[in-house]
Amino acid sequence: MTPRLPEALSFTAFAPFGDVIEVREGVRHYPINGGTTERYHELTAIDPGRDGRGIVSIFRGQPRPLPLRLEVMERHPLASQAFVPLSGHPYLVVVAPAGEAPTPGALRIFLARPDQGVNYAPGVWHHPLLALEATSDFLVIDRTGPGDNCDEVALPHPIVVDIARER
Amino acid sequence: MTPRLPEALSFTAFAPFGDVIEVREGVRHYPINGGTTERYHELTAIDPGRDGRGIVSIFRGQPRPLPLRLEVMERHPLASQAFVPLSGHPYLVVVAPAGEAPTPGALRIFLARPDQGVNYAPGVWHHPLLALEATSDFLVIDRTGPGDNCDEVALPHPIVVDIARER
Repeated sequence: MTPRLPEALSFTAFAPFGDVIEVREGVRHYPINGGTTERYHELTAIDPGRDGRGIVSIFRGQPRPLPLRLEVMERHPLASQAFVPLSGHPYLVVVAPAGEAPTPGALRIFLARPDQGVNYAPGVWHHPLLALEATSDFLVIDRTGPGDNCDEVALPHPIVVDIARER
Repeated sequence: MTPRLPEALSFTAFAPFGDVIEVREGVRHYPINGGTTERYHELTAIDPGRDGRGIVSIFRGQPRPLPLRLEVMERHPLASQAFVPLSGHPYLVVVAPAGEAPTPGALRIFLARPDQGVNYAPGVWHHPLLALEATSDFLVIDRTGPGDNCDEVALPHPIVVDIARER
């Protein structure tokens, strides 16, 4: 199977799935604290859903070997879930639109830089964490509360992903 | 004036003021994603307050020169505010208990490692961001919504802070 290569992660390309958390052109920003700090304001909002509470955890992900086989996708129907890398390594973001279980053709595969976080909108299908290069910590902002907030589905056939390497 | 030196930031020492966001001994953690990821669960909770929404911003802080004069403190009476360093540098955390305007003697001064975030509980007095060493980005999780959520007070006299250096 020919591996699929990721796209670069960008705010615009990711917009159907949620927000990219990064300092970028066009973000509203303004000085605070007597000019010693610049606030890049509201890069995303936390949606803990009805009866949910936003919580902060750290996910420590083992690096995945490449090429990589994707076999499952998951979604959190009740709430958003944000990942922000803390360890200075890139990672893969694999998503499909909210709604019916994703087909392999519906998957979008993004390569995120170490200075880019993502916030999945409620119900957006995504692959579990895909750290690259080294064991990597991610700050995760998601939800606790009543109800079942995780669905997982198997893809009808695996997708192989690789990253273009310098030759 | 003899400079005050910071204490090391720890979960226990900071407990009266909020939570330290870090992977540490004693945190509840468990494997997820088929064992490829360890989840360090609910290191803190976001409290957006009544009618508030949790939002995520990035603060880009200029490094403060040492020794440093502290002259003001602020608080957010309606909601929590979390800071997580993204740039790999230490920073200072200066707090005083919620309640009346802080006296210099009530201030606790902590030196935070680059892998330690903090979440100020609603109403806890704290100094505005004190980046050290280099321009540093921090992920900030706070609140948007109706009402006035920032009080600032001048200290009755400045406090000078320095960091012990190797000799």
